[in-house]
Amino acid sequence: MKAIQVIGYHEKLQLTEVAEPEPTGPYDVIVRIGGAGVCRTDLHILEGQWAEKSGVTLPYTIGHENAGWVHAVGSAVTNVAEGDKVIVHPLITCGLCRACRSGDDVHCARSQFPGIDTAGGYAEYLKTSARSVVRIDDSLEPADVAALADAGLTAYHAAAKAARRLRPGDRCVVIGAGGLGHIGIQVLKALTAVELVVVDRNPDAVELAVTIGADHGVIADGTQIDQVLDLTGGEGAETVIDFVGEGGATKDGLAMLRRAGDYHVVGYGENIDVPTIDVISTEINLIGNLVGSYTDLCELMVLAAQGRVKLHTARYPLEEFQTALDDLDAGRIRGRAILVP
Amino acid sequence: MKAIQVIGYHEKLQLTEVAEPEPTGPYDVIVRIGGAGVCRTDLHILEGQWAEKSGVTLPYTIGHENAGWVHAVGSAVTNVAEGDKVIVHPLITCGLCRACRSGDDVHCARSQFPGIDTAGGYAEYLKTSARSVVRIDDSLEPADVAALADAGLTAYHAAAKAARRLRPGDRCVVIGAGGLGHIGIQVLKALTAVELVVVDRNPDAVELAVTIGADHGVIADGTQIDQVLDLTGGEGAETVIDFVGEGGATKDGLAMLRRAGDYHVVGYGENIDVPTIDVISTEINLIGNLVGSYTDLCELMVLAAQGRVKLHTARYPLEEFQTALDDLDAGRIRGRAILVP
Amino acid sequence: MKAIQVIGYHEKLQLTEVAEPEPTGPYDVIVRIGGAGVCRTDLHILEGQWAEKSGVTLPYTIGHENAGWVHAVGSAVTNVAEGDKVIVHPLITCGLCRACRSGDDVHCARSQFPGIDTAGGYAEYLKTSARSVVRIDDSLEPADVAALADAGLTAYHAAAKAARRLRPGDRCVVIGAGGLGHIGIQVLKALTAVELVVVDRNPDAVELAVTIGADHGVIADGTQIDQVLDLTGGEGAETVIDFVGEGGATKDGLAMLRRAGDYHVVGYGENIDVPTIDVISTEINLIGNLVGSYTDLCELMVLAAQGRVKLHTARYPLEEFQTALDDLDAGRIRGRAILVP
Amino acid sequence: MKAIQVIGYHEKLQLTEVAEPEPTGPYDVIVRIGGAGVCRTDLHILEGQWAEKSGVTLPYTIGHENAGWVHAVGSAVTNVAEGDKVIVHPLITCGLCRACRSGDDVHCARSQFPGIDTAGGYAEYLKTSARSVVRIDDSLEPADVAALADAGLTAYHAAAKAARRLRPGDRCVVIGAGGLGHIGIQVLKALTAVELVVVDRNPDAVELAVTIGADHGVIADGTQIDQVLDLTGGEGAETVIDFVGEGGATKDGLAMLRRAGDYHVVGYGENIDVPTIDVISTEINLIGNLVGSYTDLCELMVLAAQGRVKLHTARYPLEEFQTALDDLDAGRIRGRAILVP
Repeated sequence: MKAIQVIGYHEKLQLTEVAEPEPTGPYDVIVRIGGAGVCRTDLHILEGQWAEKSGVTLPYTIGHENAGWVHAVGSAVTNVAEGDKVIVHPLITCGLCRACRSGDDVHCARSQFPGIDTAGGYAEYLKTSARSVVRIDDSLEPADVAALADAGLTAYHAAAKAARRLRPGDRCVVIGAGGLGHIGIQVLKALTAVELVVVDRNPDAVELAVTIGADHGVIADGTQIDQVLDLTGGEGAETVIDFVGEGGATKDGLAMLRRAGDYHVVGYGENIDVPTIDVISTEINLIGNLVGSYTDLCELMVLAAQGRVKLHTARYPLEEFQTALDDLDAGRIRGRAILVP
Repeated sequence: MKAIQVIGYHEKLQLTEVAEPEPTGPYDVIVRIGGAGVCRTDLHILEGQWAEKSGVTLPYTIGHENAGWVHAVGSAVTNVAEGDKVIVHPLITCGLCRACRSGDDVHCARSQFPGIDTAGGYAEYLKTSARSVVRIDDSLEPADVAALADAGLTAYHAAAKAARRLRPGDRCVVIGAGGLGHIGIQVLKALTAVELVVVDRNPDAVELAVTIGADHGVIADGTQIDQVLDLTGGEGAETVIDFVGEGGATKDGLAMLRRAGDYHVVGYGENIDVPTIDVISTEINLIGNLVGSYTDLCELMVLAAQGRVKLHTARYPLEEFQTALDDLDAGRIRGRAILVP
Repeated sequence: MKAIQVIGYHEKLQLTEVAEPEPTGPYDVIVRIGGAGVCRTDLHILEGQWAEKSGVTLPYTIGHENAGWVHAVGSAVTNVAEGDKVIVHPLITCGLCRACRSGDDVHCARSQFPGIDTAGGYAEYLKTSARSVVRIDDSLEPADVAALADAGLTAYHAAAKAARRLRPGDRCVVIGAGGLGHIGIQVLKALTAVELVVVDRNPDAVELAVTIGADHGVIADGTQIDQVLDLTGGEGAETVIDFVGEGGATKDGLAMLRRAGDYHVVGYGENIDVPTIDVISTEINLIGNLVGSYTDLCELMVLAAQGRVKLHTARYPLEEFQTALDDLDAGRIRGRAILVP
Repeated sequence: MKAIQVIGYHEKLQLTEVAEPEPTGPYDVIVRIGGAGVCRTDLHILEGQWAEKSGVTLPYTIGHENAGWVHAVGSAVTNVAEGDKVIVHPLITCGLCRACRSGDDVHCARSQFPGIDTAGGYAEYLKTSARSVVRIDDSLEPADVAALADAGLTAYHAAAKAARRLRPGDRCVVIGAGGLGHIGIQVLKALTAVELVVVDRNPDAVELAVTIGADHGVIADGTQIDQVLDLTGGEGAETVIDFVGEGGATKDGLAMLRRAGDYHVVGYGENIDVPTIDVISTEINLIGNLVGSYTDLCELMVLAAQGRVKLHTARYPLEEFQTALDDLDAGRIRGRAILVP
């Protein structure tokens, strides 16, 4: 089959012919790819940023945001059957460790990450696990939802976790109205009656955020802290979800937070540098957020089927992967680029 | 009545005669002091560290850890009566703001703090509020529990909050086995079946911690991170409660923490400086802790009456306040100095 | 001032002239009534059903769903001022007992209930407490929201409590699409992405429920259990909220419930009669629901100001109380009758 | 191998020679039995009470409380290895359904129950699953902990669930100080600082309960409701855990419950028959409890290893199963009878 592989760092990806994967373990599931999201992480992989962390052996097939149709299953698979339309959770988890047994499979002690440390989905077929596939509604198309498998899932996880504490009358600031923020806003609208303030440097992104339901848009022009304090009666917001995590976003986010508030870290890049006396005297919480669990992905697919979460995508034939990556790198993509075999 | 007052920063406290307080508002309660804890904060007040923050007008009476007997009550007070033995919550709260109405009175929008920004308990009588007095068990003496009113309450609040997430088999590291840590350890023993690791620079403090129930004592001699990782199978602990917050404790604490773990900030002094990528890739939480609420104080008094939380105290007559402060400053006090009028 | 009083059970209410209430206690608040809801409970009071339970002395003024403007305040009131537009929580609570201190003021150990056990709001003025008044948005009118003070608040409380456990993909059955159910449906739509099934005997009520957002309407014609099981893949719903509680609704509700599900009791009348083996083998929860707390009422007023919760009302001049009661008794009122002085 | 089988209802169990089980599926685990608990349910099986419910084909091997050593494992098993000392969770769960994926495996959509609907542990070897085995501490012996696998696990589950809401100062009533109640009391002592009231008809059981930590023992002689009300200041207890569920225990339990309290149903037999008005006016919760999850069993094994939960057992050689059953039926067993191959 066709697969797009990393053959060396700081080299271009290469289209190759490789053997089609087959189920070898009892819980293996082979998915015929319907769409594979093109993510900024893919660019970072090529730059070698993940080389040491993943320990992957080159060449290997990248692509960690996948959806498609079940093509073949291992002997013990009971939850999906050939032909089922599925989205693929980014991790293959063991199902037996303490984290898996308590529903927190993202912290599985023995997980694999196709597209990062084993063969991914820039290909015609992907090998994953019965524990990683979520059947999607008839109304959804794999190429349309593929990008929700990782970026969208992370945003859902943070927004849904934040939503559990948000009551009517609370204010929630979303920093960053890009891909993740866009999903986060839709999730918060679906799950809460919160007053939603969206902050971004890009006026177009702010405008779009208001279109999809933000109550207030704030352009981060240097006055963003004051604007948020004004909007919250000088108190700050009960919750801040920071989808940026660099360029000063963490200082901003903490300054926008109310006493006893929750600051959710999602984006990353810079250090959080905060006096302990500020943490205790206002009794705030700083909450890390990784990608969502399998049940998070099930829930997100419900919102997608309900039409409550939508993502703009641009499709590229699999063979045009280089154009897709170039367009992403050049900022020419609105929403998400999707490779379609 | 006699009162010990701040008459100037960088000057000694002074014993003065002042008017006895009387109930003027409907919810006022006058407490005859049975014991007033001598706290390191009192030394900091004299150094002027709180001058700007509190905005208090000199001279004023200090002392924010108080217990005694109800002496007089305002017209609307129904929860205590003259003669009741009580401990005094350190804050006077409004009871009407959003925080107060949801049981989170520590974040009251209009609170006062006797001993910090208004007259405190180094005196024969203290004016406080019906919302601040907790009746204590017949078996408890005001002078014995006074120090639980602030330092003990802070430790209880953090330990009880941490306990809500701790299951049998989880590991909890307590950094700092001084006054607060000592209470925290006893609270964790009372409320959980957690495996308890106590870390302190002082070998005597570590030994004492083990005596009162810590499962493992670790002397912070530079190998403390490795020791904790060894004790936790290389994973780190599910929860770290940091009662120190300076001298490198925050870096230590975060390094001792397991994936998806909770790091509780209680002690303060240094900055937390942590890469956002570490916060998200391990999905940890950093949780601020201020003093406990009124209901926290009620619960702590239950543990005290059950004999599950004990504090060593050294009593001084009120007039010997200077000796008590000198002893505290010189590190000559084991447990807590208490002034008794 | 004018007041409508109960002068005897099984007798008609009577319009009387009584003294205008004045603030006597420090936390008293006098509200000029803008609207008082006419509730079925008012009919039951006249039938003597509450005589023993309330222990009230006749004659007294009824009316427990009130909103208006602050007319005068006691000496210690800081949260409202003369002229403020307010809705009135149905209970006067002490603020000092254990329940009040933990935010659960509905279970106050010393509460009063104006309109039931002391003078209520079928009058020009009502005496209540600073702890009972919630300022409402400029866009809201007292006569429009008055009925949310008790019936609406009960529905909000149950729906918001249920919402805390409901995730996208879960199913929630609402039994009874009358006044309370109507509010409950709107609250569930505002706070969750749940799939909502509404069951009622009245086809018009079912139709209206679908109009305001129910995903499925089920007419209770004897096949309602089967219909709900069909809609839930034979499993039953994760949550059932029963606003009826009589005429077989509890048997229906339990039969519609999924394993590990929550059955919320709101309406009342009949007994729940369920084998313990059914409770344990399916591990279900039966959850009681009383009126909401003060903070619940604050949250409901946010939803009302956002336009997410609306209630149809029919206004009557205060003097025409008898017509309003007769119309209610005869089933001639759509939504809620409101007396306006 | 030797196995004790049901060959007909209302007939005696029979010792037979059957083929030793072998791993056939990838997650199969064969356990060499070290101890199998003799449970009252085994008597009920022989009486035919489970015939229809389980649908099991005779003959089959009974025994659902098992512990021992791993003897062989399927190809995909990674969490245990031959020779490991394990306790066996009573259910074999699928790991793929929604309940399993959220950590709530007891509600697995496709579970099996060895000893009830497939071959159990009155035998030399038992076939179970990798998802059902929990490694136990070196200090524990299979024959000593076997009875914790089902009866003990149910008690742990209910007590640990109740403990999550119990704060210092709360009162908890345990109805029934038999096998389950005995474990429940120890668990509550380990996880809470609650004031514990134990009610039983048997004075010896009450006395034993006080010995292991109950704060108050109440003999159910007809005055039990009054006694509990007296012990709780007339209010009732915040939580009641009913391990009996028959003979009037549910009426008693509800009468002993405080406003807003939790009544946990564990034992079963009679109907709960309660007016809806009582449920809503006191806003109580009735909470079903089934056996615990896999993670519950892990936690219980921690408490057992810590010595916090102990169970008295009487060992019988496997061949003397009839004596063990006769002794159980005649009430001659203190604690639990264990068959040891």
